[in-house]
Amino acid sequence: MCRWLAYGGEPIAMETLLFKPCNSLIRQSLSAQRSIAPTNGDGFGLGWYGDLARPGLYRDTLPAWNDSNLRSLAEQIRSPLFFAHVRASTGPATARLNCHPFRWDKWLFMHNGKIGGWERVRQDVEYMIRRDLYPSREGSTDSEAFFYLLVGNGLDRDPAAAFARTVAQVEAVMRANGVEEPLRLTAACSDGRRIIAIRYSSDRQSPSLFYGGGCGVEVECGEVRFGAGHGSVLVLSEPLDEDISHWCEVGEGSFLVAEDGKVRVQPFAPAVLAAA
Amino acid sequence: MCRWLAYGGEPIAMETLLFKPCNSLIRQSLSAQRSIAPTNGDGFGLGWYGDLARPGLYRDTLPAWNDSNLRSLAEQIRSPLFFAHVRASTGPATARLNCHPFRWDKWLFMHNGKIGGWERVRQDVEYMIRRDLYPSREGSTDSEAFFYLLVGNGLDRDPAAAFARTVAQVEAVMRANGVEEPLRLTAACSDGRRIIAIRYSSDRQSPSLFYGGGCGVEVECGEVRFGAGHGSVLVLSEPLDEDISHWCEVGEGSFLVAEDGKVRVQPFAPAVLAAA
Amino acid sequence: MCRWLAYGGEPIAMETLLFKPCNSLIRQSLSAQRSIAPTNGDGFGLGWYGDLARPGLYRDTLPAWNDSNLRSLAEQIRSPLFFAHVRASTGPATARLNCHPFRWDKWLFMHNGKIGGWERVRQDVEYMIRRDLYPSREGSTDSEAFFYLLVGNGLDRDPAAAFARTVAQVEAVMRANGVEEPLRLTAACSDGRRIIAIRYSSDRQSPSLFYGGGCGVEVECGEVRFGAGHGSVLVLSEPLDEDISHWCEVGEGSFLVAEDGKVRVQPFAPAVLAAA
Amino acid sequence: MCRWLAYGGEPIAMETLLFKPCNSLIRQSLSAQRSIAPTNGDGFGLGWYGDLARPGLYRDTLPAWNDSNLRSLAEQIRSPLFFAHVRASTGPATARLNCHPFRWDKWLFMHNGKIGGWERVRQDVEYMIRRDLYPSREGSTDSEAFFYLLVGNGLDRDPAAAFARTVAQVEAVMRANGVEEPLRLTAACSDGRRIIAIRYSSDRQSPSLFYGGGCGVEVECGEVRFGAGHGSVLVLSEPLDEDISHWCEVGEGSFLVAEDGKVRVQPFAPAVLAAA
Repeated sequence: MCRWLAYGGEPIAMETLLFKPCNSLIRQSLSAQRSIAPTNGDGFGLGWYGDLARPGLYRDTLPAWNDSNLRSLAEQIRSPLFFAHVRASTGPATARLNCHPFRWDKWLFMHNGKIGGWERVRQDVEYMIRRDLYPSREGSTDSEAFFYLLVGNGLDRDPAAAFARTVAQVEAVMRANGVEEPLRLTAACSDGRRIIAIRYSSDRQSPSLFYGGGCGVEVECGEVRFGAGHGSVLVLSEPLDEDISHWCEVGEGSFLVAEDGKVRVQPFAPAVLAAA
Repeated sequence: MCRWLAYGGEPIAMETLLFKPCNSLIRQSLSAQRSIAPTNGDGFGLGWYGDLARPGLYRDTLPAWNDSNLRSLAEQIRSPLFFAHVRASTGPATARLNCHPFRWDKWLFMHNGKIGGWERVRQDVEYMIRRDLYPSREGSTDSEAFFYLLVGNGLDRDPAAAFARTVAQVEAVMRANGVEEPLRLTAACSDGRRIIAIRYSSDRQSPSLFYGGGCGVEVECGEVRFGAGHGSVLVLSEPLDEDISHWCEVGEGSFLVAEDGKVRVQPFAPAVLAAA
Repeated sequence: MCRWLAYGGEPIAMETLLFKPCNSLIRQSLSAQRSIAPTNGDGFGLGWYGDLARPGLYRDTLPAWNDSNLRSLAEQIRSPLFFAHVRASTGPATARLNCHPFRWDKWLFMHNGKIGGWERVRQDVEYMIRRDLYPSREGSTDSEAFFYLLVGNGLDRDPAAAFARTVAQVEAVMRANGVEEPLRLTAACSDGRRIIAIRYSSDRQSPSLFYGGGCGVEVECGEVRFGAGHGSVLVLSEPLDEDISHWCEVGEGSFLVAEDGKVRVQPFAPAVLAAA
Repeated sequence: MCRWLAYGGEPIAMETLLFKPCNSLIRQSLSAQRSIAPTNGDGFGLGWYGDLARPGLYRDTLPAWNDSNLRSLAEQIRSPLFFAHVRASTGPATARLNCHPFRWDKWLFMHNGKIGGWERVRQDVEYMIRRDLYPSREGSTDSEAFFYLLVGNGLDRDPAAAFARTVAQVEAVMRANGVEEPLRLTAACSDGRRIIAIRYSSDRQSPSLFYGGGCGVEVECGEVRFGAGHGSVLVLSEPLDEDISHWCEVGEGSFLVAEDGKVRVQPFAPAVLAAA
């Protein structure tokens, strides 16, 4: 189980959210509170939007708490929309290529969860990736494969439909291979404008998902402060501080879109696939 | 283009061959002489047989000339059969998982060359890997995929047939995808007893391959000395010193087996596949 | 605070002690039980004696639980005397050069503890290192500096006297700089024959130190088994399993020498330095 | 011998100068043209000024040609003043801490050259570093030590005097230790406003130094284009393209200051130190 955070709103230095809160993501890398894996030390990643459509990417295999480059980048880079992820591997090797977020064109994707029986279904799932996208697949994680399925299923045109279809396809492959472990998906993606997140599991035991927001965000003495109003949104695995009034939990089977500082949550269900 | 070396014979410290010769593999990592890529700095790997059937593996992404751990291991570890490889990537990312040699069960495999049009054929080639072997595939290189095809084609029972069949399969997939670039293969594998090597290309322009041997091997003042007789064999990308009397070049389309200090070279041609 | 382990006795594969016990050192890297820093993820190191007087060294900055090379080396290498260390930095950067054990000539040294006020006393301590040894100093840790002081104080001739003198010198520099934090030292060194360990702190609150031994050592189902008699010795930060009958705690202010399977513990006190 | 580049002027994406020119710094990392060490693969570093007084720092031990993070940062980050460096070690270990540029407060420093007899003079040179600066020293290079001497000698108040005094001090220590090898210094530093560079050697054989500039800079088809006028300045180890009209060589014994797009070069000589 991993931990992640997505921010959209007025441009802020990434360190504001990554290092300053009392339960900051970097602190979660050493000891997450709501995670079955308290140590998320199997690499980390940062994706951010700047002047270009294509986002920046910085990933490495050191624990996040330990990386002097990460500290400097987080201090220097101001961004209106960024993703950060600390990894606790569910199997695939610790390697930069297996660190989240993943990037394709203008899209970023990151994930906390697992495709059940990944070793058994991987070859089939990979073969379903659209031919022209396949050269971009670099690692061996279920998360990256899921992302390229999403892209091939029209993430760019209709994200909700792309998720619904991809989940259905993956569940079909799992069934076909006799997998009984669940698919668990607490994931986020962005095109640089919207933050799209999902919380869904085939066994209704998804990793947690929260959001919060307001008119601007600051951190003082480890506590997050949102201004009244809206404009800035955080979507994340677990709250950054103890003040529960800041954070809304997103329920099982939900699809979230944050855009222009507003958050919409709608129910999510896999698509019904036509019989082959 | 990469550089590699395989040794079999009386147990020696790996540094004897990796560091001491004037054109040692580590020096080749900085500037190979017979290679189109003089710098082989995209990682390296070491595989060796010790007390267990399963060989040891040490791979990293630093340039080989620069790794203090490699120096210490090469100094300490004595082995009767080892592989060493310095990598110049032909595309796939620099990552431990993409460094040679690759290991499966008791087998090691390393490669210098390229499956032409790899980006276009990769998905098909990977789908041909035997289902039970697929979870062991960790990276994205053509070399590792070729290795798992080999294993699935009976490397353990009949190595020559496995190579012949695998080459034929890969060439068929290349043709089916309209690839015009060649397959080039100067590779070696071992089960801990034999060193098996191949030099084959669909365009007859394979990377170079040499062997040499004698009764024991020593390095003095940068020069390799083989004793009269046999017992120790080196199979490698390029000679380790200037004395050409030490080294036999292996011709295009050859299959080599070194066992008990003796080397057999026979012609190699791809298998004829039954029409599907 | 770090965790470490030293073994001497009949040659065994290093994985026996590093990976197999229920509270193995590698498990301690994720969550040590008797440590104030439960996560020891700031690099690790392995030092071992083989055929040469000079020991082998393998150190890296990844967490130990995460390093495929470490797993392979521990599986392959059998050694009659080896050191292993997992690091939780007390300040100095995470870098290979700052990972224990440190090596000089035939000696290995590793440490759990801290020279109080290191930032203030470092320049003076470093200047006390013997001139001809200084080029070997590569990192910035208090531990490595302490080691080179030890060597300069005659570690090779009389280890007990070298420790007594070095502790006294360091305490004198600390006093001269007005440092009130303690010196804490739970350390081990070896010349390939003996394991020498110390537990001493200026405030009598040293990190823990244990030893155990018998005629050979095995691990079954996570539990360590020593044969009756002697021959093999373990000296380590914390027990590897729950069976307290295996482990003797070494008291504050102790100096331990393990040789030929026998352990001698004697009181330790800093030397009295002649007035300058 | 290393290669480096400093840019000051209108904000540009760092990739413009690091990746796009035909003889870009990244290409120089694989094969520099005017260097005695053609491969500069022992790590790299990037320092840049953004919204804060304190510059950003990104350094790693991989070869620069091989680092996906570097590519992304260079693409994303626009800066009005940045330093980049590719390293070929003259001895000290490959480690992030030994990679240039070095940072202290708002200052950056990078170097190509060597303090002769470094192993012999290091302990004395380090002991000359101002006490309060010493905790910031992290590595073991001559370059970083020289930088902290500079800072202690008043770099902030009078850079020319600080260089003159530091060179004199280092040369005095070298003489006192009987070192006959030269001090060679082709270095740059910045406070975020000025680029200050020096080319000086005790044997008048300094590594090369060039500058060029104009009103804005672009790179088309691998060639650098400066607009007529001034505003942007490049100071660097070797020209980025073949057009020699772009580049002025800085002579031996020179001190250069680039500020507001204008370059001043004046003679440099070490200070005369008062007898102790």
